[in-house]
Amino acid sequence: MKLAGKGIMVKLVVCVKRKPGMGVEEFHDYWRTHHGSLVKSVPGLRRYIRKYVQSHTIPQAYENDAAPFDGIAELWFDDHAAVEAFLADPDYLAQVRPDELKFSDHPNLAWFVTEEVSIIDG
Amino acid sequence: MKLAGKGIMVKLVVCVKRKPGMGVEEFHDYWRTHHGSLVKSVPGLRRYIRKYVQSHTIPQAYENDAAPFDGIAELWFDDHAAVEAFLADPDYLAQVRPDELKFSDHPNLAWFVTEEVSIIDG
Repeated sequence: MKLAGKGIMVKLVVCVKRKPGMGVEEFHDYWRTHHGSLVKSVPGLRRYIRKYVQSHTIPQAYENDAAPFDGIAELWFDDHAAVEAFLADPDYLAQVRPDELKFSDHPNLAWFVTEEVSIIDG
Repeated sequence: MKLAGKGIMVKLVVCVKRKPGMGVEEFHDYWRTHHGSLVKSVPGLRRYIRKYVQSHTIPQAYENDAAPFDGIAELWFDDHAAVEAFLADPDYLAQVRPDELKFSDHPNLAWFVTEEVSIIDG
């Protein structure tokens, strides 16, 4: 994925596990509607985030309410420095980070910054 | 992500950890060039896979060659049944699966089927 004149973007991947005791439906609803809207609504964060996709583990992929992860968040940035600036931004720390702890006890469980390589183009 | 007339596609996410002892560069090169080309080159698999993107953890995201994951593979399918048919396909089992074991000891570490929700559109 390229941004005109700026080279290749990076993608932050966050593998999300819901809080112990939180129901599957409750988690997906909270993450999609409340948390998604929150991230979208903080104007300062749009300086960093170029695109944000949540991938929700589907009901058929659960066995007894368990799955390796309940989903992943993918956030695209211009470069690695922009990811670091985002994660250190006062708006992120004050408004978004506390909300992460409402649906996940381990928000740092699996965060990593990646570069996309398209193998088969849709 | 929608496929005309067929509703919403599903996305298989595979969180990939390289084999112990395999170098970071060696892993990324093998996964990108050899494995990526292999999946693309098996004609029978194109019946199932609509799109395939590898996301490679970037060098700055490693600390002492360690990261939560070395990357994720994302593969889009028409529906959950197509994912199951793909994973049971003789071409997948004979040609692709053995190659997964060349770069990862735990190919089943974290596989899960998801549905995408776009929060901020690029």
